[in-house]
Amino acid sequence: MKLIVGSPGTWSGMALRVSQFVFAIASLCTMATAFGNSNYSAFVYMISALLVQLMWSLALACVDIFSIRNKKDLHNRATVTLIVLGDWITAVLVFTGASASASVTILFTRDMNFCRVYSQLACGQFVLSIVLAFIVWLLDAASSFSGFWLLVSFL
Amino acid sequence: MKLIVGSPGTWSGMALRVSQFVFAIASLCTMATAFGNSNYSAFVYMISALLVQLMWSLALACVDIFSIRNKKDLHNRATVTLIVLGDWITAVLVFTGASASASVTILFTRDMNFCRVYSQLACGQFVLSIVLAFIVWLLDAASSFSGFWLLVSFL
Repeated sequence: MKLIVGSPGTWSGMALRVSQFVFAIASLCTMATAFGNSNYSAFVYMISALLVQLMWSLALACVDIFSIRNKKDLHNRATVTLIVLGDWITAVLVFTGASASASVTILFTRDMNFCRVYSQLACGQFVLSIVLAFIVWLLDAASSFSGFWLLVSFL
Repeated sequence: MKLIVGSPGTWSGMALRVSQFVFAIASLCTMATAFGNSNYSAFVYMISALLVQLMWSLALACVDIFSIRNKKDLHNRATVTLIVLGDWITAVLVFTGASASASVTILFTRDMNFCRVYSQLACGQFVLSIVLAFIVWLLDAASSFSGFWLLVSFL
């Protein structure tokens, strides 16, 4: 088994998955408890993307733990391709969700001054949730790059 | 010189650059002439991203034409790395711009019904410009993937 940091079936890979899960759940809870989120498609979309991310990271963390405990080598082309594809899809989903929500929050905060006028709108929570979602995306990018690097090493 | 479709210094690569340029200029003109665009950060950001894209595609099209005319081989690691990096940066810029603008347009069209209430707001033009920007991003992705594939073949 090749030792590439963050690749599937390694301790660092598992740490990445657990971090993705923790940040995704933090972002999700912050957004879900923010007043007024359900009125705006961008926030609803980000919540859905984070739910997909949560399930994916949890599943992959379990696979990593299984692989480490049973000393099973996950480094074959089919498995790594599947994981890299899944990582790309979740990364794109979370990134578009975070970008969309960020643009709506900027619209509320700067362009329309909604946050000042409607003080019950939880703009601070929106911002925090978006920052956490971007961290999830960065961790996703790290996972998918290490997986992709492993895939390249098979060529 | 390796014959990879869409790679730098090939006819197909030049066709991709010209297509990126044409779609980017169409998207830019549509957004720039839409009433009310300058009031919203997301649209201004997309215009800036498209301007960067325009300059990049034009420069790379010129490099491709120079390479084809003078039969100069661009397929060395340093040049291809630089081009792939540039492609990724412009692709991420255009993608975030298009996502951000799309979310603001959805907010105007569906969540807040601004497009119905303020009929002078050029929502149709916003939608058209965003669709064109997503096409630019797809063409960008094609360029960067063929460049990346070339880079992998150097390993």
